[in-house]
Amino acid sequence: MDFQSFSDKIAGLDYSRLEQEALLCRGDILTMTTLAASGHPGGSMSTIDVLLTVYNIANVNRNNLHDLNRDRIFVSHGHISPAVYSCLAKKGILPQDEYIAYFRKAGSMYEGHIERSIPGVEWTTGNLGQGLSAACGAAVAGKVNGNEFDIYVFMGDGEHEKGQITEARRFAVKYNLSNITVIVDYNALQISGDISNVMPSMNIAESYKSDGWEVLHIDGHNFKEIAGALLKAKSCSRPVCIIAETSMGSGVSFMEHKACFHGAPLSEEQYYEAVKELKLEPSLEKYKEMRKGFMWAAPHIKAENPKININQGSRIIYNADVKTDNRSAFGAALLDLVKINKPKEYTDVVVFDCDLAGSVKTNGVEKNYPENFFQCGISEHHTAVCAGAASVNGVISFFADFGMFGVDEVYNQQRLNEINSANIKLVTTHVGIDVGEDGKTHMCIDYIGLLRNIFDFKIIVPADPNQVDIVIRHAAKEQGNFHIAMGRSKVPVITKEDGSVFFDENYEYIYGAIDIIRQGSDGAVLAYGSTLYRAVQVHDILKSKGLNFSVINVSCPAYINDEAFNKIAGYKKIFTYEDHISSTGLYCTIANMALSRKKFIDATCFGVNEFPMSGQSDEVYDMLSLSPEKVAEKIIKEMGA
Amino acid sequence: MDFQSFSDKIAGLDYSRLEQEALLCRGDILTMTTLAASGHPGGSMSTIDVLLTVYNIANVNRNNLHDLNRDRIFVSHGHISPAVYSCLAKKGILPQDEYIAYFRKAGSMYEGHIERSIPGVEWTTGNLGQGLSAACGAAVAGKVNGNEFDIYVFMGDGEHEKGQITEARRFAVKYNLSNITVIVDYNALQISGDISNVMPSMNIAESYKSDGWEVLHIDGHNFKEIAGALLKAKSCSRPVCIIAETSMGSGVSFMEHKACFHGAPLSEEQYYEAVKELKLEPSLEKYKEMRKGFMWAAPHIKAENPKININQGSRIIYNADVKTDNRSAFGAALLDLVKINKPKEYTDVVVFDCDLAGSVKTNGVEKNYPENFFQCGISEHHTAVCAGAASVNGVISFFADFGMFGVDEVYNQQRLNEINSANIKLVTTHVGIDVGEDGKTHMCIDYIGLLRNIFDFKIIVPADPNQVDIVIRHAAKEQGNFHIAMGRSKVPVITKEDGSVFFDENYEYIYGAIDIIRQGSDGAVLAYGSTLYRAVQVHDILKSKGLNFSVINVSCPAYINDEAFNKIAGYKKIFTYEDHISSTGLYCTIANMALSRKKFIDATCFGVNEFPMSGQSDEVYDMLSLSPEKVAEKIIKEMGA
Repeated sequence: MDFQSFSDKIAGLDYSRLEQEALLCRGDILTMTTLAASGHPGGSMSTIDVLLTVYNIANVNRNNLHDLNRDRIFVSHGHISPAVYSCLAKKGILPQDEYIAYFRKAGSMYEGHIERSIPGVEWTTGNLGQGLSAACGAAVAGKVNGNEFDIYVFMGDGEHEKGQITEARRFAVKYNLSNITVIVDYNALQISGDISNVMPSMNIAESYKSDGWEVLHIDGHNFKEIAGALLKAKSCSRPVCIIAETSMGSGVSFMEHKACFHGAPLSEEQYYEAVKELKLEPSLEKYKEMRKGFMWAAPHIKAENPKININQGSRIIYNADVKTDNRSAFGAALLDLVKINKPKEYTDVVVFDCDLAGSVKTNGVEKNYPENFFQCGISEHHTAVCAGAASVNGVISFFADFGMFGVDEVYNQQRLNEINSANIKLVTTHVGIDVGEDGKTHMCIDYIGLLRNIFDFKIIVPADPNQVDIVIRHAAKEQGNFHIAMGRSKVPVITKEDGSVFFDENYEYIYGAIDIIRQGSDGAVLAYGSTLYRAVQVHDILKSKGLNFSVINVSCPAYINDEAFNKIAGYKKIFTYEDHISSTGLYCTIANMALSRKKFIDATCFGVNEFPMSGQSDEVYDMLSLSPEKVAEKIIKEMGA
Repeated sequence: MDFQSFSDKIAGLDYSRLEQEALLCRGDILTMTTLAASGHPGGSMSTIDVLLTVYNIANVNRNNLHDLNRDRIFVSHGHISPAVYSCLAKKGILPQDEYIAYFRKAGSMYEGHIERSIPGVEWTTGNLGQGLSAACGAAVAGKVNGNEFDIYVFMGDGEHEKGQITEARRFAVKYNLSNITVIVDYNALQISGDISNVMPSMNIAESYKSDGWEVLHIDGHNFKEIAGALLKAKSCSRPVCIIAETSMGSGVSFMEHKACFHGAPLSEEQYYEAVKELKLEPSLEKYKEMRKGFMWAAPHIKAENPKININQGSRIIYNADVKTDNRSAFGAALLDLVKINKPKEYTDVVVFDCDLAGSVKTNGVEKNYPENFFQCGISEHHTAVCAGAASVNGVISFFADFGMFGVDEVYNQQRLNEINSANIKLVTTHVGIDVGEDGKTHMCIDYIGLLRNIFDFKIIVPADPNQVDIVIRHAAKEQGNFHIAMGRSKVPVITKEDGSVFFDENYEYIYGAIDIIRQGSDGAVLAYGSTLYRAVQVHDILKSKGLNFSVINVSCPAYINDEAFNKIAGYKKIFTYEDHISSTGLYCTIANMALSRKKFIDATCFGVNEFPMSGQSDEVYDMLSLSPEKVAEKIIKEMGA
């Protein structure tokens, strides 16, 4: 919205109508929380006046919810869902009644914390401290796409204790995301009581100022002050934080400034007293009846993402004599994808980095397409969320990092990305025991074992530069969250028995399928990523000892499809060869499948069973008895050969 | 150290000796990194002058490393290990030569990033942003114990982009940890280049000031300025941040202010040039020889923890007719432990909370023993590390939180606690699908599946208040990190067939053992935590249908000892009943054990296979077909009964 239109909208605000609507919202909030006997009325009522004003001004309505140019309203303290649902209903985005009647009812879409699957909700929150990062994601996507919109981010005061907000705040200023306006619901109370007792050293205003924000202070229950601040924020060339002083439970005298109403509803008796004070008709009985008749809806509603159109480009083929690292192959594929998707008809590919571009090989994009590259500094929590939110706002996000930081450090942020049905492509390098000499703090030996806990988050561990190239293009095209993991060192190109490239131009990537690299009948060695070429070496050693083993590439070690599983189960002896914790990687997948399919399999795991130490990659393999020589020796022993 | 002694020490500093020592350290740094062809010389050289000065002043020597009154030197940017090792050797804490010769060699203790297992290193770092939180942990432990010491925390400048540091900074001011002095090595460069390009909106000094710190600026290569600032910091009644302006690669002209030397060693040619400029004898050849002769040491050196002496107290027994929640039983046991360990001969029990004391039931301690209770606000990352570090500085730490925040949000911090051989007791509530109506963002259905990726981090899921009581006392007494998980709702007391309390005064807790709650011969239902009493209900339903099933409590679902496994494997039909993701909980443990022991087991899992939704606990169980009735029905069907 241009400034003049915005200014006109502000000038045209009908304050008495706003006040009346806010009153109705307060009634809704009380009714739904008392009915559900659960929920957060206090903060819902302290935020409602500003929230409702913003919904009345912003360019958001039921017809433009998929328009990339719509304004965005993020609510970071997702527990004020009663306030949000009520505003959305007043705007005609949600149907009346249902959100009141079915609030927090098992099977209803009106969950305790706001969910992106609800029309008008931009991001599922509830875990605090995430909203501003998500808003930054929408802002950068808009920037890349040339969309113009305003972004409002509602936040609690207590949640500012989360460090991630500092990261997001600085990012917003660095990238001049001046279309972002934060509104802090400063009711000065959190669960444990007065915010100045819980964290007296936190000065929210000074924190914003020290990171370069403009800060405004208003009475959050005075519509004229609210409107004035929003106008001022609109005209400001920096991101603005409006600190709205409010009262917990505002509107009902016995609730005001009481921390106990943060997360507890009124009793029925209190409800009737409150509604009386608000001069509203009580509606509890009506909704009680309605709630009784509720039938479970589909339990798993997914949010709808904007359509994407990705040009996958042409494969880069690495010949059999090339020796490069998978990271570099990723960098090359990524650079290609960014380039060929620049034309307007395609969806932009955007890259997020946390101070490791040179190591994770996104520096080609940084250099050639700086407008598609976001250097976030050492701020992984913010970055994971920002990249996730960008991916549902009109771009494809690649977030590349060391495994330790992109997975272990931000596991929960990735989980939230999946809950948000995001479309992030997480590419990690330096995984497993191929991290170089940095030592155990940097060794991500759980790069499968963690994300396997997130339903539908796909995990791919390509084996060589050719497979990397195809997998990166595959992930860019497919909707959904992907984790693509690779080591640090140079690896040989995987070849067929005849010496030709295995993952050649005819190779088709199917998630869940396996590749038979070498065919044998005495058993099979299953490997992925950094262990696959080593498994081929094992195969050769075994062959020289008269043992004929298959080598199977399981590039999706957390998910094997039925056809592939049956092939694996057909071998009389299986060894998995992993640079990962033994009990949570591929072996774990096979164990789970064998048990649930009631299938007996003879399988042994060669994996990591302790925190490894610093050292050159080959040395560490050797030290953990994972060198091809030692693995072959153990197989020979076990086979009694 | 009292102020007068400190002041005398400062006055007695021999600056020319310091300068000479710093020069030798620079030589060491260059030799070891060039020799290892790996490492971080740049930041090591920029920090060395302040670091060496602090080592010369602080009350740290090889004889007092286990004295709780020693001063503490934390190094948060653990990649400057060459500088740290060199200082420790100059102080006589590490033997000469070895750290140079064996730096970053596989099997050597001198890893790429500093490790707590090295004498004189207080905390393993490397993952950035952790050091100040760890220092706060040492400070609060000291406070509780009445120890008096100073704490120095060395930090990089770029690492301040991590939000966790904001959390730690505020905590330090809230608890008046004025014995903490932070020294920021402000060389203005990080991997990606100039810090003011990477994150121009970050103003480190203003950030500290806005959180209530005193900030001093010095030339970090001027010993007099360094000494002056340390003296000033010592006298200050607030935590002090000294921003030391330094030069990356300081001392060697061609390295100065070059970002490329952050993480890359000199070539041999450059090495000789640098050593010549420093007027030092090159020693590369000597150490090359020594390195050649290196033999692997024990791969897994554990840091030594201070002795603890915990009075476990007497069991609280909940009678069969009591119905309370496990959280409250935890709260009661904890309160008892805090109280009975107050006498000087015992180790203090300290509690950390993130704004949820009322829900996780640590509020009894908050009220009665506020000096043992630390309210950290909504700052889980800081809190996890702070509690971990406190636990190796003379107290026992209990960190209680919702599962989602204590596990998912801070997985990596818990991993770092384990790497640090910490002694944290993580107690989580609201796990599984028993969280109330908060919805999927708050449902921790991976409370086993995540921490099973951390070797030796023990996971216990007690089933009723009686088992909670014994398990909490058990974990307090045992060295090592524990995760004890529980749901939100009230649960019945588990009883024997005769109606008497199962986990009575004679019950002995063994980690890895199982409890046969009901004995049957047709098969077994394995359960833990919130599903155990439901499994007893299943047993009763099955019985009424003529099926006689055992009910087995597997309170350590990630680890089953051999005896227990053999018992389980003896059943012809097993069902696991879990409020956890099906593939990463108990079923996963059994699958792994069956596969690796080549044992065929017939086992089916009833668990969680999608993100659940809001709802009352019983409703959610029902919706996911996990109510006792539905589970019994499925068993009956599968048994063909």
